Amino acid sequence: MAKEQFVEQIADIEKDFPQWYTDVVLKTKLVDYGPVKGTMVIRPYGYAVWELIQKNLDEMFKAEGVENAYFPLLIPMSFLTKEAEHVEGFAPEVAVVTHAGGEQLAEPLVVRPTSETVIGHMYSKWVQSYRDLPLLINQWCNVMRWEKTTRPFLRTSEFLWQEGHTVHASAQEAEEETQKMLGVYKTFAENCLAIPVVTGKKTEKEKFAGAIATYGMEAMMKDGKSLQAGTSHYLGQNFSKAFDIQFLDKDSTQKYAYTTSWGVSTRLIGAIIMTHGDQRGLVFPPKVAPIQTIIVPIAAKKGGVNEACAELEAKLKNVGIRVKTDYTDNSPGWKFNEWEMKGVPVRVEIGPRDLEQGKMMLFRRDTLEKISVSLENAVEEITALLATIQKDMLAAALQRREERIVYANSVEELLKGVETGNFVKAGWCEDRACEEQIKAQTAATSRVYAEGETAETCVCCGKKAKHMVIFARAY
Amino acid sequence: MAKEQFVEQIADIEKDFPQWYTDVVLKTKLVDYGPVKGTMVIRPYGYAVWELIQKNLDEMFKAEGVENAYFPLLIPMSFLTKEAEHVEGFAPEVAVVTHAGGEQLAEPLVVRPTSETVIGHMYSKWVQSYRDLPLLINQWCNVMRWEKTTRPFLRTSEFLWQEGHTVHASAQEAEEETQKMLGVYKTFAENCLAIPVVTGKKTEKEKFAGAIATYGMEAMMKDGKSLQAGTSHYLGQNFSKAFDIQFLDKDSTQKYAYTTSWGVSTRLIGAIIMTHGDQRGLVFPPKVAPIQTIIVPIAAKKGGVNEACAELEAKLKNVGIRVKTDYTDNSPGWKFNEWEMKGVPVRVEIGPRDLEQGKMMLFRRDTLEKISVSLENAVEEITALLATIQKDMLAAALQRREERIVYANSVEELLKGVETGNFVKAGWCEDRACEEQIKAQTAATSRVYAEGETAETCVCCGKKAKHMVIFARAY
Repeated sequence: MAKEQFVEQIADIEKDFPQWYTDVVLKTKLVDYGPVKGTMVIRPYGYAVWELIQKNLDEMFKAEGVENAYFPLLIPMSFLTKEAEHVEGFAPEVAVVTHAGGEQLAEPLVVRPTSETVIGHMYSKWVQSYRDLPLLINQWCNVMRWEKTTRPFLRTSEFLWQEGHTVHASAQEAEEETQKMLGVYKTFAENCLAIPVVTGKKTEKEKFAGAIATYGMEAMMKDGKSLQAGTSHYLGQNFSKAFDIQFLDKDSTQKYAYTTSWGVSTRLIGAIIMTHGDQRGLVFPPKVAPIQTIIVPIAAKKGGVNEACAELEAKLKNVGIRVKTDYTDNSPGWKFNEWEMKGVPVRVEIGPRDLEQGKMMLFRRDTLEKISVSLENAVEEITALLATIQKDMLAAALQRREERIVYANSVEELLKGVETGNFVKAGWCEDRACEEQIKAQTAATSRVYAEGETAETCVCCGKKAKHMVIFARAY
Repeated sequence: MAKEQFVEQIADIEKDFPQWYTDVVLKTKLVDYGPVKGTMVIRPYGYAVWELIQKNLDEMFKAEGVENAYFPLLIPMSFLTKEAEHVEGFAPEVAVVTHAGGEQLAEPLVVRPTSETVIGHMYSKWVQSYRDLPLLINQWCNVMRWEKTTRPFLRTSEFLWQEGHTVHASAQEAEEETQKMLGVYKTFAENCLAIPVVTGKKTEKEKFAGAIATYGMEAMMKDGKSLQAGTSHYLGQNFSKAFDIQFLDKDSTQKYAYTTSWGVSTRLIGAIIMTHGDQRGLVFPPKVAPIQTIIVPIAAKKGGVNEACAELEAKLKNVGIRVKTDYTDNSPGWKFNEWEMKGVPVRVEIGPRDLEQGKMMLFRRDTLEKISVSLENAVEEITALLATIQKDMLAAALQRREERIVYANSVEELLKGVETGNFVKAGWCEDRACEEQIKAQTAATSRVYAEGETAETCVCCGKKAKHMVIFARAY
């Protein structure tokens, strides 16, 4: 194979973004298709990203006093029907176990699409007194939603996620928790994934089935479409009434508790790819890069090159940098292409001439810049460069997004806006008919309310607007 | 409630070990029963133990070059039938999804009871050349086996585990991998869980469905019964032939690969409880204790006590000790009982008199000893004590087990041995009829071959023995 072949194998990111995405996720071995339609296999390189997401986010959850637990995969079908909106939303897409242990089951069991019901059932046993509150539990697990159209990471019948479920004594405290966890997600997306997000309330149409209010975090992908990257739901007393989560309050009366739930999933890996990727392939922000630095020996047969690489690798490992040296017998050009495609943030090149001068070459994957620096300060230089890349990637993504937020005063303008890859802000009267008409005419949906902004008139009917809404085509 | 009530609520460990176990796991909030028969909910205190098991074991796997991945939960029923022994072993206990997305499925899907089949299917795509080998992948996930009789952690329809699946170019390399991972488990069980284990080959009757050979690690519980705490399987070419895992070898011929699989599960939590627990409740080895040190302020209203406790807590946290201070208004006696029941390895008591003398009281959960030590050296004292407890718990468990390994020359002796809570070593002719007769007469099963030992005659038929076998009643 010619050394440029890696690049040629990836579809043009400008002309065919969906194919570019598919090429990148498969060719970098992040993921593969499972044998059952709509399923994915997360391969080691992709799973390593998920492990880093888990590690970072889990620390943030624990700092907020959240503990992890594990609830059963299979939920009695009757549980779903206890909350009217919930069953309506999820029943059409559940997978159902009807037989087990060689017998037909008395009651069919659904593979969890989300766990409010089974967790609500357990909480009704565990919560007795105000002293048991707040109850803050999260679980990392697999969930299943039978989807017609699927794409790796973005929409698959089974995916991995975390779901937090909290119980509180008052509506206010539960609402605050909903906002707090949305804030945790936003901080995580920006600081760890270098993905700028817009957060805000969702419309009734777009909210979680069974919630009083859903708050979403939306990220703009490179094609201008929006990806819902996380949600936080204020559930009020809907689930506590359906599952009888009552507590004896300080005033000696029995009260229904207030609950929340919030989740992010392996979808975030798709968000990373479509926020930062380019024609050469993946571009990982250092904090979630499985390999942060790849060392490529140049003309390694000459004296001292491999030794210098090994020494550097040991030093970088020692300070906690995820580093690897490519000792294979591929050509340097081949290695450059391969590790660029795999999105490694920093490449170090060390050859005999560099060694003579006490230098090494650093290549930044995000900006494609090369910098020659002193080998002596290698650890400091690379540590600093990784931090710079992390910061610059967020700034670059933020700038791209800010340039692509426009306002619309008519559905035609809104259509033009989303067709040219923008988030479009427009007034809305709060009438679902207008929301549906906008979707029918533009293929754009309401993403979230634009926080702190108001609008005069509804972009669709011209009546008085109640909200400024961000519309976009979405994944 | 009287402060002794915690103790009284737990059944007598000598008289009713099964009820003692149930009391301990429920009352310490490790686990609860799920709504579907045979399922469990792993509560935060129990899940924290699993997280520590995962963290420690995952590091050991990665040090052996194993990477994590994630494969689909649902497996086409037809996959199971591709390996004749495998389907025979697992088909009777699978849960089956027959409907999804509102429609009947063309082919039923089983909820994975183990993943050799679906992973074998993927490996046949990924493995092409000897350059792709060895392939060393592990997954942390949930699995489901529909069981008639269930007990939290020990046997539940759904449980959490890890399953490693490796592919090799030669039988020898695969056999070495099987042994290596068995060794990793043994090291982990002894060093982290303080559980001494016997490892060895299983009989044909007890081996994994589809394996050439299964190696098990067996731990003696306090009632003298054995618990299979982990297994490592050499699968030969059984699955590579069933799933067409072929590679082009160096000699340019296509060959079937050799595979292994190995796993441990949340069952290990049950093993910890039944190896170390006592009449007061749980006793955690420090390395997997969710809380390693509990600080109890005594007469906290007197000046300086709470401050001294907070200061110590901060110092211990700073060196990575999992520590908590109990500031509740329960009595010290209540707190002692509660944290003893919860198995916290070290309790620190600090009262006004201790402070005056610059002292603190340390209580060892494992030996129930109290030691007064200098507050000044608190961090060093507690760090050293945790290490001592870890070591001593293994030694104590090992001694208990060694005292309870006996030899039998007749089935009657074997019966007497297991009835009095022993592992019984006895010769066996390798005839399955004898193995089954022994089980029928003694309720004991063959656990593993006693490595390095030989026997003259079969304990059952008196013919020439081929192996010395460890028999025990088992969980």
